[in-house]
This record gives sequence, structure tokens and C-alpha cells, in this order.
Amino acid sequence: MTDPLAPGATIGILGGGQLGRMLAMAAARLGYRCHIFEPGAAPAADVSHGWTQAPYDDLDALRRFAQGCDLITFEFENIPAPALDVLSRTTPLFPDRRALETSQDRLVEKTFLAGLGLATASFAPIDTAADLATALTATGTPAIFKTRRFGYDGKGQARVMDPEGAPAALASLKGAPAIAEGFVRFSREISVIAARGRDGRVAAYDPGENVHQDGILATTSVPTALPLKLRTDAVLIASRILTALDYVGVMGVELFVTPEGLIVNEIAPRVHNSGHWTQAGCAVDQFEQHIRAIAGWPLGNGARHANVVMENLIGDDIARAAALAAEPGVQVHLYGKAEARSGRKMGHVNRVTGPA
Amino acid sequence: MTDPLAPGATIGILGGGQLGRMLAMAAARLGYRCHIFEPGAAPAADVSHGWTQAPYDDLDALRRFAQGCDLITFEFENIPAPALDVLSRTTPLFPDRRALETSQDRLVEKTFLAGLGLATASFAPIDTAADLATALTATGTPAIFKTRRFGYDGKGQARVMDPEGAPAALASLKGAPAIAEGFVRFSREISVIAARGRDGRVAAYDPGENVHQDGILATTSVPTALPLKLRTDAVLIASRILTALDYVGVMGVELFVTPEGLIVNEIAPRVHNSGHWTQAGCAVDQFEQHIRAIAGWPLGNGARHANVVMENLIGDDIARAAALAAEPGVQVHLYGKAEARSGRKMGHVNRVTGPA
Repeated sequence: MTDPLAPGATIGILGGGQLGRMLAMAAARLGYRCHIFEPGAAPAADVSHGWTQAPYDDLDALRRFAQGCDLITFEFENIPAPALDVLSRTTPLFPDRRALETSQDRLVEKTFLAGLGLATASFAPIDTAADLATALTATGTPAIFKTRRFGYDGKGQARVMDPEGAPAALASLKGAPAIAEGFVRFSREISVIAARGRDGRVAAYDPGENVHQDGILATTSVPTALPLKLRTDAVLIASRILTALDYVGVMGVELFVTPEGLIVNEIAPRVHNSGHWTQAGCAVDQFEQHIRAIAGWPLGNGARHANVVMENLIGDDIARAAALAAEPGVQVHLYGKAEARSGRKMGHVNRVTGPA
Repeated sequence: MTDPLAPGATIGILGGGQLGRMLAMAAARLGYRCHIFEPGAAPAADVSHGWTQAPYDDLDALRRFAQGCDLITFEFENIPAPALDVLSRTTPLFPDRRALETSQDRLVEKTFLAGLGLATASFAPIDTAADLATALTATGTPAIFKTRRFGYDGKGQARVMDPEGAPAALASLKGAPAIAEGFVRFSREISVIAARGRDGRVAAYDPGENVHQDGILATTSVPTALPLKLRTDAVLIASRILTALDYVGVMGVELFVTPEGLIVNEIAPRVHNSGHWTQAGCAVDQFEQHIRAIAGWPLGNGARHANVVMENLIGDDIARAAALAAEPGVQVHLYGKAEARSGRKMGHVNRVTGPA
């Protein structure tokens, strides 16, 4: 093993939201300083050494930021290509460009996954109304139309119940390049948080079971009620994806559980909301694991010593934080956001339900 | 319960070392901003919103600092009285002055503990050589002479094996007001980390067993091998101390285990090195617990879901951090200090040895 990045070095983080904030604290625990790049409000900057407040098209600001960092990571995948060009000229970026470019675009992502022989929803590109008939032949109905880029938390999606509804669904995406996905009848959604180090080793946490409300993750629970065989399959799928991408860092892999087995829903090349439970259930949480991976430390082995239910605090839920804190085994994480807008992730709690 | 301090409020922390740093991160997890007051280097400032770098006798700087904070806490007990005067004029301080004044002075502390009916080492003040004979009558020999104030990690202490050695031992303390303490023959040292909320409720963690090397804490392990009766006694003693002081916050209570029962060694009115294991063993660690207490949140119940050994990384030990990180269940905490001086606490690891 080569030596890890020296303590006192500076890690740059693109994005100043809650994921950046928790990454910054994990980096501090390993002795690093963090510098946040974020055009808007930056709760992450409150726990970081420095903050560059500039838009992602301010290439001068990006250049200065990169020059001040020993390595760079990010909390979100939609970083524009010209920004990546500037950053990577002076400073290593983990996970790398290939991971970003694969996950930024749903069509590229699904094509990559299918190329690995992994099961995904059926899919087809839809650029214009002329593609609708062919696409629906591939996916059948019901289907979901999604913008290829910049969708999150259910945004940029439209459901298509029958071919007659397709033109309206496409129109609702406002001309953005899109993809049609076949509807997957699944019994559960799980996710695997996995990491790959600079040395190529992979470690994964136990799969967690996710429940969504209004298109936003509501809870993740570990352990899942799944048979061991499926849990192992899930971890192996994640491992295969990381290795194929020569990936460095933590990745979230969302999977559907169906009667035919596991189907990969999507991948996120970053720490993931469904991995927050690791803060209460593992010696090394996903944030420390990510910093370990990108800074050249040995990875934690992912062992879980507690059963945990993670619950997101969305919008006004934050008013419940103190009452939740009064319950046994509840760990509170608030994100320091100024305004509790509806649908906004304001914090989460991890409820330890017992030893593993 | 009244509402906790609102998210977004600012907590001032006196002292910018590792305890301040971990307090600042815990405060951030509860949605607060932190402002550090520290004359020297301040690793805590790297994870805080603001930092006032000024000496503790700069009353103007203290005044401005206090005015910018919604409440103030501290990572060390030796805060000068004039500083406390200035701070408390505008801003609530937790734990309060009485706790500080009791623990700043070993004679006051021991007198307070004895007044509660708790067992302590025998003790007597020694201000000048004229007090030696009387003091040694109270303590017998061997005894330990300690400065009444400003001692830590074994500094400001001298061992007295027989009456003849007493004058030299006193002289080594260089005229500082001192206390003679009788030698306690103990089998183990344990500590209880306990918290008391603004509402008067007390919560305590399982006692940890401490091992020192060269006067500095080396490891803390939970659970201890002590019988349940002694563990319960330890927690009750801590609870009595906190309640007698009308204390708000986390306190570390060090106890000796002797054939005659538990003897209180000393109290620290702050988060404590021997409580770092809670970061890996409890849903709510001692840092979050302290912030909960001072900011008016309900306390965590102190339940432990894992067995943990905490090991300090002193001086060059930091070079072992990456190798330790490769072991299963090891969580690394480095303090971001620039220089690994001998005897300096550079970090710690928490090793999860199994579910509780």
C-alpha cells in the first residue's frame, strides 16, 4: 500500500449541500482540510476550511480552486464537462470522469449496465415524437419517460399509461433529450453502498431497503428481510459495476427486487442518501469510506454492528427533530439549511433498533 | 420541554483543540454554527463557521465573541475569571461558572466531593513548607503533591515517598499553591461520562476502563470487567455530582476501583478523552450529548450497542493510523494538528470489537 494523502492536505468538494457537509466532516476526522466549491448557499462551508462561491462556468474560479486542492471530489454528478476539463488539468478528481459521464446520462448508464450483462428495465432513447412508436415497442406500457440528464428525486419524469398518452408525456419534458423505460413490477427497492479503493479493492455495506414517498427517499432500513442469496447477489452486482468503471470512491447502486431477480435501477457516483444509516451502524460510515477510498487509505470492511432505520426529515419534518431525539437510540443529523421548503431534505435521523 | 436552541444559531466554543473540534462537528450535526475562541493554533476552526484568534485577556475580543454567540461552552476548564465575567454579561455559558470554579482548583474540588459524602483520596492544602508536616499527617506517605490549578496529563505533580522527600517535591512545584493527596492503591481506573440537561435530567454512559501510559490516557475499553453493582455505583456517584452542581452539559468523572469501593479521583466539566469510545458505541456520542444538553435538546439515553476499545494516538503514533485503519472495525479520528510532538494527542481510533 502506498501512503495515504498526508494529514493537513486539502480536499476540494464540488457542491456545498448536505452530502458535501458530511463528506467534509469525515475528511476532517481523517485530518484533512476541505474547500467547498458551490455557487449557492453552502451548509458544507460551515464545517470547512474554505469556500469558493462561484458558478460552475466561472473557469477562473475553478482553476484557482483546483490549484489550492490536493485532490477533488464531489457530492453531485451533474458537473459540466468544461468544468471537469479545467479541474483535471491540475488536480486529481475521484471518482473520475468516466464514472461521471456514465451516470450523468440515463441512456449511457443503462447501455453501460446492459453491456455488463446486468438486468435493467427495458429502455429506448426518445429524442423526438418520431421515436415514440419504436421506443414503446421496446418498453411496452406502462412506461416512464425520463430526461436523460439532470433528473433527481422524481423530477424530470412522466408516466405513460398507454400509447395515446405518450406525446403529452414527452411534451412535459420540454424537449430535453429523454429515455423511455419499461415499467418494472418490483416488490422492494434496495440499495448497495459500495466503495472501491485506489488499490482496486472493493468493500460493500449490507444492502438497505428503501421506501419512497412522493418520489423522495423516506426511509432506509438494515437489515432487509431479503434472503441471503439476494443480498449477496446485490453486493456482487455493485462490485462488478465499480470494477468495470475502474472506480475510486463510494457509489450508491439502487436495485429493484422482482420475481425474476434483481434489476439495477440506477447508480450514483457518490455517497448516497440510502447510505446514511452507516453513520449509526458501522465503525466506518460511507462518508469516511469515501474519503478513505479517494485519499488512498485502506477501506473499512463494511461490517455492521447495529440494526438501523434511517428516516429523512423533509421540509417541515424538521420541527419533529427534538421529539425524535427524545426516543431511545436516535441520532440526529440536521443540515444547517436556512429555510424548510416543502420537499427539501433538511436532515435525517438514524434510529438504532438493536445490536446486529 | 421548552424548544431547543433554533437551528442556525451560533454556539461559541472556548478552546480550539480536538475536543472543540469534535464538539463543533456535533453542533453542526444538530444544525448549529460554531465560533471558536482560541489564541493559538485551532484545528477546531477548520470545521467551524468562525474563529476569533485572541488571548484570553483580550476582553474586547471576548466581548465581541460573546455578542456573536447564542450560547457559549468550552473544551477546557482553565478559563480565567475576568474572561468569564465578560462572557457571561451577554451570553449564557454552559456548564456554568460554579462547575468551572469547582473543578479548576483541586482543593475546592476535593472539598466539594467530600462534602457530598463521596470517598476521595485523603488530602490537605500545602501553601508553604510550614504546612508539610500537617499535610503528611492527613495523607500519610507515599503521597502526591499536585498544583491546585492548571495541571493536566500528569503535569504539575510530584510523588512523595517519605517525609524527607517532601520539601524537594514541594519545591518542584515552584511555589504554586498545592495540595497533598494520599496515595490510593487501586486495581483499576474507570470513568463515567454523564450528562445533565437544562431540564435536570441525567443520562450516563457505561463506565469505561482507562489505562494510562506516562501519565497520559492510552486506552479506554467498554464494557469494563467490573461487577454490575460497581458499575451502577459509579453511575450513581456521577449523577450525584452533576445534580449537586446544578450542572448542564457533559462531565467526565474519573474513579478508582479499590477493595473498599469506588473513590472519586477527579471531575472534568467537559467532554472527556475517556468518552471518545461513544463515537463508535452509541447512537448519541458524548459530543452530541453535550450539545444536546446545553442547547436544550432531550438527552440520548446513553445506551451502548457495541463493545469498543478507544486507543489514543500520541505523538508519532499518528504514523500508525493507516495501518490501524486496515484492521476490521477501526474508526479513525485525526485532529488536524500540524506537528506530531512527543506526548501530544494527535488522534484516536475506536475499535469495535463486537455488538454489545
